[in-house]
Amino acid sequence: MTEIQKAVILLSGGLDSATCLAIAQSEGYECHALSFDYGQKQRAELKAAEKVAAHLGAASHRIVHVGLDTLGGSALTDAKIQVPDYVGDGAIPVTYVPARNTVFIAIAMGLAEVLGAADIFVGATAVDYSGYPDCRPDYFRAFEKLAVLATKAGITGAKFQIQTPLIALAKHEIIQEGLKSGVDYSLTVSCYQADEDGLACGRCDSCTHRRRGFEQAGQRDVTRYQ
Amino acid sequence: MTEIQKAVILLSGGLDSATCLAIAQSEGYECHALSFDYGQKQRAELKAAEKVAAHLGAASHRIVHVGLDTLGGSALTDAKIQVPDYVGDGAIPVTYVPARNTVFIAIAMGLAEVLGAADIFVGATAVDYSGYPDCRPDYFRAFEKLAVLATKAGITGAKFQIQTPLIALAKHEIIQEGLKSGVDYSLTVSCYQADEDGLACGRCDSCTHRRRGFEQAGQRDVTRYQ
Repeated sequence: MTEIQKAVILLSGGLDSATCLAIAQSEGYECHALSFDYGQKQRAELKAAEKVAAHLGAASHRIVHVGLDTLGGSALTDAKIQVPDYVGDGAIPVTYVPARNTVFIAIAMGLAEVLGAADIFVGATAVDYSGYPDCRPDYFRAFEKLAVLATKAGITGAKFQIQTPLIALAKHEIIQEGLKSGVDYSLTVSCYQADEDGLACGRCDSCTHRRRGFEQAGQRDVTRYQ
Repeated sequence: MTEIQKAVILLSGGLDSATCLAIAQSEGYECHALSFDYGQKQRAELKAAEKVAAHLGAASHRIVHVGLDTLGGSALTDAKIQVPDYVGDGAIPVTYVPARNTVFIAIAMGLAEVLGAADIFVGATAVDYSGYPDCRPDYFRAFEKLAVLATKAGITGAKFQIQTPLIALAKHEIIQEGLKSGVDYSLTVSCYQADEDGLACGRCDSCTHRRRGFEQAGQRDVTRYQ
């Protein structure tokens, strides 16, 4: 019998990362979920992440505090910047959080090193997404190169792999994939400005992509709206 | 008159990063110092960083919280692992904190993006150091490549430069450089297990490199020992 491989899964509590966790579980990894309290104004996603980790049977779930709100510069962390309604694809929106994915994946790399895991799963998608630069395939390949130099792996010859199973999927395909793996999307919270009970606004970028995803998948939208 | 360039300076409160800040100041940058409360057992370095930032005239100083102690795996953050006495160069020691530099530089990159700074100064040295993988020149070059892809810079064509002015200097050369720039090393705390008043143990890796540095520089060791 081959040894069970451990993996670290970034879990925001949203639709994409829940699907990503379900995929990693279905591939047989021992999944260690990792969420971040980074000063996001929307707090419901952390509760959602806990529920999703339990629901999908993650081996562990950690919430790590990172004070990205100290830096400001994003509508998701800065009280002075409002989350806008959907404005379509194009420029990088004000919901972009500088360095967020780099910080999160760096911490995932640290946890992977401590646990002896070689795989980091990130639910990034470059299709129905908000145009953030740190969601592109080139970015993840550059991080893998960095990770080898950044850790003991550089000396032992080990490697880290950043797995992005959703990268080429449209939102409706992600939903179809997740439903096959038994994800209960009513537990997930995608809205940039969900209230404390996790009820979604229905108007922001993230809500718009999600609602269209359920429509195009021909599935009932189980999102709980305000 | 040319516009003043902003720079972000990682400032631990130790000898190297204080010197690095002094060098950046002397080069005319508007210096924004960045320190981290990452769950380190040794708390005196954060007080030292505040004093050093004020003493050297940094334009701003932020302390960002990052819960690296949630991950464990290092003598500097895990109460169950003791800081060892000096054991010489060679293997990566238990004082290595997985992902620490990657997380710190990622957050510096985020701050640089928010401030409109292109330069990040890191007081890393690959000479009299503790053998950490994330202090090597190749690592910093890989991070610069990542940074372009990770941020708006990838779209605007801007670049980030990670400046490591101490990388090729021995400890005594760093001290000589800092004294020229007016660094008061009695404010700095390098010891891995300094007490709450910042008094050093005199026995750990970091104390050993520092003490030898003062000796070889022919300078009085102003370190305050226990």
